[in-house]
Amino acid sequence: MSSTPGSSGGLGASAKRYVGQSVRRREDPRLLRGDASFVDDVDLHGQLYMSVVRSTEAHARLRAVDTSAARRAQGVRMVITGDDIDALVPLEQIGYHEVYPQIDDYLHPVLARDKVRYVGQPVAAVIADTPYRAEDAAGLVECDYDLLPPVLDPQQAMSDDAALLFEGQSNESVRIVKSYGDVESAFADAAHVVSGRYVVGRHSGVPMETRGCVADPDRGRKQLFMWGPVHTHDCQRLIAEVLGLPLGDLRMKHTDIGGSFGVKGGVFPEYIIVGWAALRLGVPVKWTEDRLEHMVATAHAREQVHEMSAAFDADGRILALRDEIWHNHGAYMRQAEPLVSDITVGMVPGPYRVPAYDGVLHVVHSNKTPLSAYRAPGRYEGTFARERLFDEAAEALGISRVEIRRRNLLAESDLPFMPGMDICFEPYHFDSGDVADHLDKALVATGYAAWEEEAAELREQGRLVGNGIGILMDKAGLGLYETGAVDVDASGRIRVRTGASSVGQGIETVLAQIVGEELQVDPEMIDVIHGDSELVPEGVGSWSSRSTVLAGGAARQAALDTLVKAKRLAADMLEANVEDLVLEDGRILVAGTSDRGLSLAEIAGRWDGWSARLAGDEPGLGAESVYLDNHMNYPYGVTLVQIEIDPTTGDHILRRFMTSTEAGRAINPMTTRGQVVGAAAQGIGGALYEEFVYDDAGQPLATSFLDYLLPTSQDVPDVEFFMTEDAPTPNNPFGAKGLGEVGLIAVGAAVAGAIDDALRDGARITKVPVTPETLWSRASKAPRNGAV
Amino acid sequence: MSSTPGSSGGLGASAKRYVGQSVRRREDPRLLRGDASFVDDVDLHGQLYMSVVRSTEAHARLRAVDTSAARRAQGVRMVITGDDIDALVPLEQIGYHEVYPQIDDYLHPVLARDKVRYVGQPVAAVIADTPYRAEDAAGLVECDYDLLPPVLDPQQAMSDDAALLFEGQSNESVRIVKSYGDVESAFADAAHVVSGRYVVGRHSGVPMETRGCVADPDRGRKQLFMWGPVHTHDCQRLIAEVLGLPLGDLRMKHTDIGGSFGVKGGVFPEYIIVGWAALRLGVPVKWTEDRLEHMVATAHAREQVHEMSAAFDADGRILALRDEIWHNHGAYMRQAEPLVSDITVGMVPGPYRVPAYDGVLHVVHSNKTPLSAYRAPGRYEGTFARERLFDEAAEALGISRVEIRRRNLLAESDLPFMPGMDICFEPYHFDSGDVADHLDKALVATGYAAWEEEAAELREQGRLVGNGIGILMDKAGLGLYETGAVDVDASGRIRVRTGASSVGQGIETVLAQIVGEELQVDPEMIDVIHGDSELVPEGVGSWSSRSTVLAGGAARQAALDTLVKAKRLAADMLEANVEDLVLEDGRILVAGTSDRGLSLAEIAGRWDGWSARLAGDEPGLGAESVYLDNHMNYPYGVTLVQIEIDPTTGDHILRRFMTSTEAGRAINPMTTRGQVVGAAAQGIGGALYEEFVYDDAGQPLATSFLDYLLPTSQDVPDVEFFMTEDAPTPNNPFGAKGLGEVGLIAVGAAVAGAIDDALRDGARITKVPVTPETLWSRASKAPRNGAV
Repeated sequence: MSSTPGSSGGLGASAKRYVGQSVRRREDPRLLRGDASFVDDVDLHGQLYMSVVRSTEAHARLRAVDTSAARRAQGVRMVITGDDIDALVPLEQIGYHEVYPQIDDYLHPVLARDKVRYVGQPVAAVIADTPYRAEDAAGLVECDYDLLPPVLDPQQAMSDDAALLFEGQSNESVRIVKSYGDVESAFADAAHVVSGRYVVGRHSGVPMETRGCVADPDRGRKQLFMWGPVHTHDCQRLIAEVLGLPLGDLRMKHTDIGGSFGVKGGVFPEYIIVGWAALRLGVPVKWTEDRLEHMVATAHAREQVHEMSAAFDADGRILALRDEIWHNHGAYMRQAEPLVSDITVGMVPGPYRVPAYDGVLHVVHSNKTPLSAYRAPGRYEGTFARERLFDEAAEALGISRVEIRRRNLLAESDLPFMPGMDICFEPYHFDSGDVADHLDKALVATGYAAWEEEAAELREQGRLVGNGIGILMDKAGLGLYETGAVDVDASGRIRVRTGASSVGQGIETVLAQIVGEELQVDPEMIDVIHGDSELVPEGVGSWSSRSTVLAGGAARQAALDTLVKAKRLAADMLEANVEDLVLEDGRILVAGTSDRGLSLAEIAGRWDGWSARLAGDEPGLGAESVYLDNHMNYPYGVTLVQIEIDPTTGDHILRRFMTSTEAGRAINPMTTRGQVVGAAAQGIGGALYEEFVYDDAGQPLATSFLDYLLPTSQDVPDVEFFMTEDAPTPNNPFGAKGLGEVGLIAVGAAVAGAIDDALRDGARITKVPVTPETLWSRASKAPRNGAV
Repeated sequence: MSSTPGSSGGLGASAKRYVGQSVRRREDPRLLRGDASFVDDVDLHGQLYMSVVRSTEAHARLRAVDTSAARRAQGVRMVITGDDIDALVPLEQIGYHEVYPQIDDYLHPVLARDKVRYVGQPVAAVIADTPYRAEDAAGLVECDYDLLPPVLDPQQAMSDDAALLFEGQSNESVRIVKSYGDVESAFADAAHVVSGRYVVGRHSGVPMETRGCVADPDRGRKQLFMWGPVHTHDCQRLIAEVLGLPLGDLRMKHTDIGGSFGVKGGVFPEYIIVGWAALRLGVPVKWTEDRLEHMVATAHAREQVHEMSAAFDADGRILALRDEIWHNHGAYMRQAEPLVSDITVGMVPGPYRVPAYDGVLHVVHSNKTPLSAYRAPGRYEGTFARERLFDEAAEALGISRVEIRRRNLLAESDLPFMPGMDICFEPYHFDSGDVADHLDKALVATGYAAWEEEAAELREQGRLVGNGIGILMDKAGLGLYETGAVDVDASGRIRVRTGASSVGQGIETVLAQIVGEELQVDPEMIDVIHGDSELVPEGVGSWSSRSTVLAGGAARQAALDTLVKAKRLAADMLEANVEDLVLEDGRILVAGTSDRGLSLAEIAGRWDGWSARLAGDEPGLGAESVYLDNHMNYPYGVTLVQIEIDPTTGDHILRRFMTSTEAGRAINPMTTRGQVVGAAAQGIGGALYEEFVYDDAGQPLATSFLDYLLPTSQDVPDVEFFMTEDAPTPNNPFGAKGLGEVGLIAVGAAVAGAIDDALRDGARITKVPVTPETLWSRASKAPRNGAV
């Protein structure tokens, strides 16, 4: 295991360590006792309820919206159409706007006018005094559609005979090209070239809690208070902009959340309608999405086609990689785009020493629900394609699937690996670690040799058992900076305010550990406040596996600054020199004494407003900090899967499942494991279960859990987790890498490899999710040793 | 008129001036449109309602409280007694605790145990699902009392045979002595000694809105959010302390307020009960006081007896003053005490050049409602006594009432007047002005000579018309420091956050003017945020006529700091030197150009979080500031009254009413005038109408507006207001003096003098309020020239 680089510079050997410990989650008591407050728990006196009228057609002119019957319905207070709110859903401004100004032409209207472009698109909204009356009245709104041919397939969408979603504009809104090295020569000189077409199906994060929001207007002050499971500061800024409110007049509060996974990020049209209606009605308005709405209107993800080829030398060393990608973004340019596309192309080479690369990605629009940044966006898709190609190469070159990877993985000798390509405006820079070494450690740790023996033995018995491997590289910690503040209370409790949000990842616990260690205070005494634009006026938020590194860095700095102030104040109170003071067990002591000391609570209590001001000091004991970090970090790992397929039914069992990661430094091994295991379950969903299927008319077929299959606790195996802390990143004081997404990235690839290994029928899995039909049809015909 | 000392140092001659202008009130649109949110407007989903069971006896042992019937009543969720909350109502810690530690022995229990000490004291509380059920169930609580003799008169309370309210402890909890000079010799050598016994009756501020509060618990985070018309930061700190909450876990929010007047300050037992119940029930609890409760349980004020004497030389120059004061504080040591008593003794000499002074004040407890700091506490009472004594001396010495005052008032030649006496821990220091000169100006301005002629003429006609005069000195601006912050929004709106609160005085307007002037922005573009312990984590508050000076000073500094930042950022954006930039009309311009400039909004918009951090700067355009001021300021003025009394009915008409003040500098002459006129109306109430009368058993007799008389719009005359701005205080950059209370101080004295002048029957008004009975009985027998 690694040393603890710089995390607690000032602490002596006897100090209590909380960082690196499996401290129990600070979030859990309120969640487990039913005391959390999710958005649907927010009920305001006199609130009204919104129901949304959604397009029933994939592609049509909207000739008229007749709201007269709905307006007459009992309890209805307002019916809203695109004539009332003629606005577009704004995109986060994360730098792409200047590079691709045309994205403005593809924005999502808050409410449809003239045209609808996917089933589920909001057309009108009804506000009534009960949710039931709102929904009933929504059913009375009549839309007159003039049908247009739907565009569904991303490659077909770019053909000349495809209908255009936006008149006069290409269905391809953005094309992203990244390349380095001399790809052409490499392919010309290659001993081997392998290629394939790989498809990642449309699926998404499906949180337990659907979307919702509540808006409470202050009529007198013309202010709005909104609650929702949202990106606090982004939503505050963007919604205020659309509603024409000064920023300070929109208070945005992040509620507890039943899963975010990226799909709840960004601004949705419904939030804007709720805020707009509340301001005009002067009373609170609430909206809670039902599951059907969630399945068509929240956010899909993933759908991509990769046409990829690789050039290898005779020894199986990769010389160049090519990938052309069609990213089926759905009808409108929305949340996190074209960020996801940028990451997709940039991360295709992943953990490999790829000397030359040509990647091009087409952001294509179709008559489907818009995509979003679902956990590990771009990496899941690209890793599936690339790892499948490596399996292909292994077979073509007659090298084992492990060995061909080992020969090409980045190793310490490659550092720093900077091939000359930007990802998210930042040069791709692999600065710490040894993926090849990690692979070997992971194989040993999990006993992969025994997996292979066991599979061989079972296959001998005629059973369809196979192993698969996927190597992943993630990028984490995107986003410049985060804010943090520490305040010590006279009662001894410590309040940490952070720009990050608790989205299930355990950030409250992690920040309590970090601050607790620096101040030598039990994390149970530390409360973490987040997700409130008033309490934390500035912040960036929790996405891109960034919170531990960035919010952690800010909280740590605030704690260290708090300690400096504590010592300065204590020196005065104890009549001692600052240099003679030490921190022990949450007390500032004169070194060498056991009784000349003060607890942080005592220091804080002494310096209330009056006393501090009298002494010409700032009251209170605390500090605010901003942590800046303009380098992403790159965690990597291995996913191994052993599958068995029933030849009769096509059913499968994941017999073994191992995922590993290089963590740099895990602040809390228990929550890290939780993150990885949870991500693995979602990876399994994307590999074997979940898909938003459409019919030829663009009608969604998976609109409930009867048709959209989720892996249940019966389907998810025990996930073995292996972690190294060999290569702390030099970019932050913890050495920590962001680990919120690694567990998911290589699952599709590893599962696909395991299926092909189990079936050995010459066919290939080139699309995930693998459907039950595919498994059944291949398994029933697969060759079996000794089978009856 | 005066110059404008330093208020806008950096502004050129062409700058727009908002300070000193009668800018329209920023508060009024929401108040006039019914869009304000008073505490009873705060309704939370699922809230319960509290009703308080109050003592029906003035002084009794409380043998038992039977809550069984109430607990069984429909809709009742909780019944609370002193056995549940065995706690005391805490006092603000404003320094007296260390000087008079015994005050702890006289604190108010949250709920009575063992003993009740005034009618109205809370004994139990019922929480139910409707306010009606709560009140009905409260009626079912049975208290078993064992009656004790009541103590009512403050002088009698100190006699040996008075019952003791607190066993083993004197009914006099605190004695405050202040003296300077050789009083004994002065009296021994005096040409004239006059003396009198003066009584100020028990009355109080009676706001339109009664008290109330709402508490909303966050069960998951164990936090509490409370709304009320309260002193935000004091209440947050003290209630958190009693409830055992870390400070950050109690959010206190000041609602719009239907009048504060000091009587809503401090912590009341009901607030603690509501918070306590909400935390335990896990749902919101609301309490709204009814008018009867308000009359017995909010806060009384004023009741004092002064036995005062003065020594004069042969020319009518005062040599020394003695005052012994009995302050009938009621049953318990509560809000703002012994601060009010300290001010009372300290301010008795007031605007006069008193060379020697002996003052002693007894804080006496009795079986009446506790007193509080009602507008101009101590000054109204002491001024009534002192001014009556000067009228007495005028007659004794054969000098006119104006002339004897003129000879003794502080003039510029007396500056600095520091007789060597502390008031509120601060040396009394009259540092700017000339009261004698102000008197003469006021007399000229109002044409007092004509008043005298007119009165004489009418008296000739047999009418009972007289003039009265009172000279006042106030102390204002108490309290060390205040906080302020300015934020400019990208939309151009400016948000000012202040530790002060809007209690009706117009502070939102005044701060908008101050910031508007410094930033050259229309005050209509400025929103003032206050009274929220989260949005403004630290503040002192609005009392003691301190807000304009202290909150204004903080807001001004924050605006100036904002301007510095604006210029620094603009220099970068305009590629200019900071020194070449000027502020014009809310824009930062390169001097000498009209087009090379940026609005504050443009600068703010450019520096969002991402951009600012990238440039290594703090995001946003704004600044925070703390304004320190450890000197009170002393506004002074004159009140003149002309009264006519109907000899048949005893009814009166205030024919003329003039009040003047030296303002130092009025930030807004219109709101200043509003403050003064409003205060005058309250002064008239205290002089002629309002009194909390008790019977011999200690039962309050004035518990509704049928018995507690308030001056109506029919009774309050047109108030003439005269202001000088001759003597800006050197203590703050505006030169402003606090003017929230001056209009009230001398009204009792001037009205009393006018009555005696009108009646000329040899009797003296020595007590306010003057009752209709007194007026009628004296008027019916008064000598009348030419009367029929």
